[in-house]
This record gives sequence, structure tokens and C-alpha cells, in this order.
Amino acid sequence: MRLPLALTMGEPSGICGELTLKAWLKSKSQSLTCFYVIGDLEYYQEQSTLQGQKVDCVEISNPADAIDIFPDALPILPLKLPAKPVLGQLNPANSQCVIKSISMAVAHVQDGVAAGVVTNPIHKAALYDIGFKHPGHTEYLAELAGGSAKSVMMLACDDLRVVPVTIHLSLLDAIQSLGTEEIVNIGKITAKALKDNFAIQNPRLGMAALNPHAGEDGAMGCEEITIIQPAVDKLRASGINVSDPLPADTLFHEQARKNWDAVICMYHDQALIPLKTIDFSGGVNITLGLPFIRTSPDHGTALDIAGKGIADAESLINALKQATKMSKHHG
Amino acid sequence: MRLPLALTMGEPSGICGELTLKAWLKSKSQSLTCFYVIGDLEYYQEQSTLQGQKVDCVEISNPADAIDIFPDALPILPLKLPAKPVLGQLNPANSQCVIKSISMAVAHVQDGVAAGVVTNPIHKAALYDIGFKHPGHTEYLAELAGGSAKSVMMLACDDLRVVPVTIHLSLLDAIQSLGTEEIVNIGKITAKALKDNFAIQNPRLGMAALNPHAGEDGAMGCEEITIIQPAVDKLRASGINVSDPLPADTLFHEQARKNWDAVICMYHDQALIPLKTIDFSGGVNITLGLPFIRTSPDHGTALDIAGKGIADAESLINALKQATKMSKHHG
Repeated sequence: MRLPLALTMGEPSGICGELTLKAWLKSKSQSLTCFYVIGDLEYYQEQSTLQGQKVDCVEISNPADAIDIFPDALPILPLKLPAKPVLGQLNPANSQCVIKSISMAVAHVQDGVAAGVVTNPIHKAALYDIGFKHPGHTEYLAELAGGSAKSVMMLACDDLRVVPVTIHLSLLDAIQSLGTEEIVNIGKITAKALKDNFAIQNPRLGMAALNPHAGEDGAMGCEEITIIQPAVDKLRASGINVSDPLPADTLFHEQARKNWDAVICMYHDQALIPLKTIDFSGGVNITLGLPFIRTSPDHGTALDIAGKGIADAESLINALKQATKMSKHHG
Repeated sequence: MRLPLALTMGEPSGICGELTLKAWLKSKSQSLTCFYVIGDLEYYQEQSTLQGQKVDCVEISNPADAIDIFPDALPILPLKLPAKPVLGQLNPANSQCVIKSISMAVAHVQDGVAAGVVTNPIHKAALYDIGFKHPGHTEYLAELAGGSAKSVMMLACDDLRVVPVTIHLSLLDAIQSLGTEEIVNIGKITAKALKDNFAIQNPRLGMAALNPHAGEDGAMGCEEITIIQPAVDKLRASGINVSDPLPADTLFHEQARKNWDAVICMYHDQALIPLKTIDFSGGVNITLGLPFIRTSPDHGTALDIAGKGIADAESLINALKQATKMSKHHG
């Protein structure tokens, strides 16, 4: 039997409620498979008339019930918020519930009653206020998964997957923290995930250089020689199909994208500039290296447009689709 | 009367001859205006049968003669090479001629007999061998222009223009050499060129941040606060329409590209990744800040494919088109 996807509530004062309802509304035209959201029934009911269409919201008592409900209504596994959310205004009184929605979703996949976890965006500052100690979503999920998992962020759109080796660091810190072992680890996790979750038998990894023209044999930077090529050599020694460090401006055009199942990038913008140039609103964030499937939309909580009805659900819809695709391959 | 464009020969052992002939062959279908090449008649004649089509090559004695010749034949202003070029093999014996082709083209625009200079790619190593002392084409052109000109590289495709503040430096050196005054100078030259050569009355400049998320108020790097924003403030004080430093991954998608007449980028790949992701083979290099028009294709001499008939002339054709467009606006 196919299992439903567990969708977390995300930050209730942001656009997450609207996105969830919009995703359900498009579930038929977009051929989305069944999902349920872990959240507050009343919260969704209050926002449930969108663009002239009314979404029926139905409480379920366990994930399996979602299968029958989903074609006709948004299935909601109840998690009552202590304070009524005000759109656009963070309220730490609800933060514990935001976190609990995540841990419940993970418990469901671990118990074998959900196919994967799709997370709505959270607002870290609101969670830090109540003592949440993880830098973000991904690290919290890694802890829930048992703590030893090394998680890796992949971003994907229709014809490009990128994996940044360094992420939320200044560009200077990113360069200075670049290391061979980290690139090797990330390359291995990426190759394994492409096999296990994307059914690609011999994944082809592109390796982006750090410097312009890949450093031109050391004339414009030596990190290709001292850090990246040694990582390529180690990855090849372990049987992984990976390119030499190539000039980053040659890797992402339409023809080049056909050469790679994923491109390993050295810093945030090297990965995000091409992805968001190609597909600004449809990108999906996929966490690799966890013992379960997890995807999320590639944007934030957008407090500034909450309640205006203009939030774009494309990225959440794609995150749901991506999780479904991956769950078909997941062993 | 419309003036012809002066095209330099470029490195004769590379793909420049083939590109020049291919550009002329497409001149009707691509509506190219008149150009002439400064080079060796015999060299072009030997390569003049391409894809089953024969290009007639006709010597002219001065640029004005090109106008009548161009519809029926490739006009060649003669510059005899001392050694017969062997495709794929550099020969320093011809380097002096390669340089002379450039200085003659500049003399023609300075004398008012050519509308602009379009340069075929050169191979710097071959020129250094005979004592050429400029880092590249652009610096030599600046000297020919009188030496005081500050020249700026712009790269352009159909719907994006980018201007890198730092260019051929390692990424680390690029970060460390970034300075407010340089950004201000480049912003001013870019805005002036967009007015003078592109007929854009109030050019809108996008300013890319250096760090991911534009540094998030200093949390991920402080160059936005200490270096880039002060440059933005100075540019605005001088009446230039420029954005705050914005996250680089938000600047280049289809919708965003409509907001900018050019984007000022902090390093080579920040400019080249989006440009080449959008249009890998059609980009054009435009030198701003010279007292005359100069464009060139955005690729090298490609010694490895010289003589194989597979060189793509799209970038040279676009460079010729761009020079024509600019010459219509040039005061």
C-alpha cells in the first residue's frame, strides 16, 4: 500500500497555511499523491477560502486515514496551537508546536506510517527564543534521526541538481574552510543518494572549481590543485564517476546540464546562482544522508506577504512531488 | 554615410579565419552590416570553402571600399603574414602582424573611416614571446586610445548585461582586492556607457552582494556594509540609479533580468555563471570606457579545433551586431 507524505505546519504566522491549502487545491491538476499536514484544524479552516475556492479540512486520527480523505479534503492530523496565530506576527507561544509538528512527522516515517517528511519553512529566531538549539531544520532532523547522520543539502529543479559543500558562511570563510575530506564525504553521500533515492545506477557528478577558469593551473588560485583535485582522486578511487574541477561558468548551460546528475559546488552562490537563474520559484531543497526522505520548499516564511493570498506554492508542490518520486525508489 | 566595422585578424593559427568567413556567410541571414577584416588575403582564400559554400575574398585599398564589396564578397584590407599559418600551431613569426591588425583597426576608427573595432581572439602567450607587454587586448586598446582611459569589461547576451568589478584573480584575491572606489568608478563608467552607447536615458544598475543572502546584516560577511553599500551611496549621490547590494542568486532569473540594464558583479564567476548559464555560446564582450566602440567574441582562439570546420561563429556574429547597434547611438 502507498503511504501518505507527512507535511509539517511550519511557522503559522507566515505563508505556510496558505501554501498548504494551495498545494492541496492543485493536487489534482498537479497529480500530487496523498499528503496530510500536522497542524491546527481551526487555523486551516480560517484560511480555507482561497481565490474563490473553499478547501474542506478534515481531522484524521492517524496517517493511514489520509488516503481516503485526500481526494476530497485536506487531511489534518491535529496539533492544537496554544495561541491563535496572527499572520505577519511571530508568537513564541506557538514555537513548541512548530517543533513538535516536525518531530511527529519524523516519528511517523520511523514508524512506517508515512512515506517521507516534507517540511514547511520555519522562522529560526522564533524557535531560538524558546531554547531551540539547532542551527536549522536539517540539523534538528539529523538529531531526530539518531544524531550520527551527516546530512547534506541538495537543491533541485527540473534539469539541475546542485550540492553546495559550504553553505551559510561568508565567501571568505567558505574559501578558508574548504577541505578535501568534506568534499569527499559530500561526494560520497550525494552519489549514494542518487543511486538509492533517484534510481541512477552510475551517477555522474560534476565538480565545480573554486577559481575562475578553474585556476588555470595555479595561475589564478591553487585550491583546485591542493584541495579539490585530491578529493576527486579519492572519490574516483572509491568508484565514483566525477569530473575534474571544471570552470563553474561552463557547467550549467542547457547542454552542460545533461552531463551531470548533480554538480558539487564549493560555495552557496555557486550552487544557488545557476539554480535560481534557471528556475527561481520552483526549486526544491532535499536533505541527503538522513535515513528517511525529507524535502522542503526553497524559500522562507515570508512574514511580509502572509495573509495577502499572493504566496507562490510552486516550490512546496515540487517538494511534495520530489518526495513522492524519491519514496518510489527508497529501499 | 554608414561606416564599415573594422574586424581584426586575431590569432591566425586558431579558429579566427574560419569564424570570419562564417560570419560573412551569415551576413545576409543575420542582417549584419558591412565589415572588413584586416588580414592576409591568401590565408582567407585557402579556407574559403566552408560547408560546401565558397566565400569570395576581395582585397580593398581603404575601408570605404568595403561598402560596395561587402554584399558580394568578404572585403580584406591587406596585411601580409610573414609565415604561412599552420592551423593548431602558434608561430611567433606572425605575432607582430596580429598586433598590427589591432593598431590599424584602432587607427581607422580614430581617423573616422570605421564605425568600431571588433576583435577576433588573440593568444597572449604567442604575443608575450615577442615582447608584447600588455596583460591583454583591452589594456593594449586603452594604450592605443591614449593611455588615460579606464576600460571596463561588460559581457552581454540578449537579456542580460554583467560587469565584473574584479576579473582574472583567484576568488580569495578578488575578495581581498574589492574596494569602494573601484566599484564607484566601474558603476559610473557603466552608467555613462549605457547612456551614450545603448541610448538608455536613466540606466538601472543592479548591485550584486559578495556574500550569500547579501551577508544578512553582517552575520555572513561584512563587505556589503563596509565596501559595497558605501559605493552604492556614492553612486546615488552622483545621480546614478543603482540597487542596494542584493543577494546574487536573486538577480538573474527571467523576471529579475527585466529590472536591470546591467548588473555590477563582485567577481568573475558571479558575472559569468549566470551569463553562460543563460547563453553559453552567444555572449559578447564589450569594452566600456574607451573613446571608441569595441566588441569581441567571448571565447578564445580554440587551437584544438582549428581547421576542423566546427567552430561556432555565433559569438563573433553577435559581437558584430552589438558593435553596429552601439555605433548607431555613439555620439
